[in-house]
Formats: sequence, C-alpha cells, structure tokens
Amino acid sequence: MAERVLHNYFRSSSAYRVRIALNLKGLAYEYTPVHLNRNGGEQFAAPFAALNPQRLVPVLSERGVDISQSLAIIEYLDEQYPQHPLLPATAADRAYVRQLSLAMACDIHPLNNLRVLKYLSGPMRQADDVKQAWIAHWTKAGLDALEQELARAPQRGRFCFGDTPTMADCCLVPQLFNAQRFNIDLAPYPTLRAIDAECQKLEAFAQAHPARQPDAE
Amino acid sequence: MAERVLHNYFRSSSAYRVRIALNLKGLAYEYTPVHLNRNGGEQFAAPFAALNPQRLVPVLSERGVDISQSLAIIEYLDEQYPQHPLLPATAADRAYVRQLSLAMACDIHPLNNLRVLKYLSGPMRQADDVKQAWIAHWTKAGLDALEQELARAPQRGRFCFGDTPTMADCCLVPQLFNAQRFNIDLAPYPTLRAIDAECQKLEAFAQAHPARQPDAE
Repeated sequence: MAERVLHNYFRSSSAYRVRIALNLKGLAYEYTPVHLNRNGGEQFAAPFAALNPQRLVPVLSERGVDISQSLAIIEYLDEQYPQHPLLPATAADRAYVRQLSLAMACDIHPLNNLRVLKYLSGPMRQADDVKQAWIAHWTKAGLDALEQELARAPQRGRFCFGDTPTMADCCLVPQLFNAQRFNIDLAPYPTLRAIDAECQKLEAFAQAHPARQPDAE
Repeated sequence: MAERVLHNYFRSSSAYRVRIALNLKGLAYEYTPVHLNRNGGEQFAAPFAALNPQRLVPVLSERGVDISQSLAIIEYLDEQYPQHPLLPATAADRAYVRQLSLAMACDIHPLNNLRVLKYLSGPMRQADDVKQAWIAHWTKAGLDALEQELARAPQRGRFCFGDTPTMADCCLVPQLFNAQRFNIDLAPYPTLRAIDAECQKLEAFAQAHPARQPDAE
C-alpha cells in the first residue's frame, strides 16, 4: 500500500481540484482509477462503495485516514503540509478564498456532474437539448457571479487571490475545463480566463489535466 | 449599522446553518431579511445583488467584511471566536467534520434549493410529481450515504462528531428540516434522527429554527 492514494477519475472535476493541490504541494501519490462510467459505475461496487458511502470520487487515503469531499481533502492537505499554502494568512482572506471555492463546489459543479446528467436523461427522459440548456443555465449563473466578484475584487492578483494559487484556483481551472467541454462560451469571462491562463503556465496545473491521467480516454 | 448583520431568509437551510453557528458561539446579530420569493426575489435587486453577485443568502457582514457561502461563514466564525469550537482539534478530525458538512452542502442542498425547483417547474415545465421525485431522489441519495457513514463512525457521539455540536450538526439539522418539509420518510435514518433529537434539546438550535425567525410566514 502506497503512503498516499488518490481514488480518482480523470474527468471528475472535483478529483482534478485535488490533483492540482497535491501537485502544488509537491506531494507524490498513487493514482487509483475508479471508472464512473464502466461496469455500471465502479464507484457503486466494493471496495470503493465501502470506502465512501457517497459513491463519489475523489477519496484521499493517507496513513489510515480516508477523506472524501475535495474541499475537505484540500483543507486537510493545507493543514498537514505547510509548503505552498492554499489558504491566505488572515481569517477574512481565508473566508474569501473559501467563499469563491464553495461558489463553484456547491453551486455550479454538483448541478452538472455525471450523476445529475444521467438522472436528467434517464428517469426524467429529457432530450439532449434540454440537458444542454440545463448545463448552460447553471454554469452561466455561476460563472457570471464569479466574474462579477473577481473583476471587482481588490484581493485579486494574477490568481483568484493574490499572486500565488490558492484553493480557489484549484476549483476554477477544472470548472472552466468543464464549461469548455460542454461548449459554454467563455467570452463573457475575461477575468476568469486571465486567471486560468496564469494557472495553465504552471506545471502543477498542467500535470493535473484530465488528458494527462493514466485512465484518460 | 449593527456590528454584525446576517442577511437572511427564514426558510433557507444554508442561512439556518449559520444562525445555529452564531447561537452556539453566543454571538448577537442583526437579522436582515431578504425575501427570496417576493417582489420577483429581493436577492436579485439592489442592495443585495451588489453585496453578493451570487444572489444567494446568507451573507454575514461584520466590521467591513462581507462573507457569502454558509460554510465559509461558519469557518470564519470559528477562527475569529474560539468559544465553542465548531471544528475538532486534529487535522484528520477536522477533515471528517468538513467531509460530512460538504456532503450536505454540496451534494444534497444545492440540488433541491428554491432556484433549482423553480427551474424545474418553470423553463423545464416539469409536473409537481416529477419535481417531488427529483427532491426525493437526491435527498435520499444523500441521507442514505450519511446514515451509512455515521452509523459506523467511531467518531460519532451524541452529535455527528463527539459530544458537542460541530459544523456538521449545523448542516444536519437544517437538512432534516428540509427533508421533512418535502415529506421524505426519515424512518430509514435512525442515526441521523438520534443526532437531530440531541440537537433539538439545545436552545442554540431551537432559536435558529425557521418558524422562530422574524420573517417567518
């Protein structure tokens, strides 16, 4: 058993957040793929379903501790490994970075993830264009608010907060990746795109990209 | 201007979380109602829309700092006011409480909040029974996983973690309130109901209940 295992799926944007955080901190990990779309969903079978009753990736396993929920994992990594802090130094600034992160992790991503899209086309029998309108609606609502917030924020630097990447950037890059995958026009989001471009220059972000994972298709 | 203002809506379960946290810490606040369902939604108009571009309650305003996202607010309160800690002492235990909280804040609540239900019945023209099936599906998926997790957890005490309420309990009680409001059968969740019953004994939880807020209908 490796010292640190990330139960992972290349295209999961919440797993992508954690991969970025691990890379920023320079922490090596074993990549254990959990294929969300094969064999009826490997997350529903043993051993993963016992590891995380939510049946969602990612899960980080480290020294007998298993943690699910990407933001809980990132906060844990930040507390355990002080190199490259992913949260700022003051309570108000940490609140700001958490607020940005949660705006994506609560109010954009969960509405558009695989299990919700499957429910729309499965039990609800919605056509592809209705599903696409759903994705566009929630993505745009979320990105519109983020753009408005970040465009005016004195805290913003090259990244969401200041000039080094934080947890908020770990969330932003996968969220924009997702948006592009679903053909959302990013033209109305110049601030978000500028931050994304800064992130893409860093190896920690590049190596976390879905296309570069061992289970990429 | 009061020292501390909570922009609030009595029935918002994310606002309810923050009211519990403020009460547990014994922090007085001014209650500023933002009616989500009147005048086309007061959250879409000035001054609230400028305060929070996400147009979502709650927002905490304190000494010139405005924070949205309930979990960001609770973490901020916990860092600023050490009385009655809402997160445990070790990194692994904090990760566990955050994981439980995020399982509700990301994967149950955002799928069933007012704006989503309005989208289902509005642009998607779904009948009430389809909407009710949607609510039941995501609530049960979330509560099933939480019950399974908490029933087996050695960390559980009278509350989600140990014998004093944490951020996870601030999330659980509003989530169960919501589930009951939508007629979800709570019989399959004995562990969750037992924790809820312990919480209900405390004045901090009772005073935060939607029915006891100044804008309650």
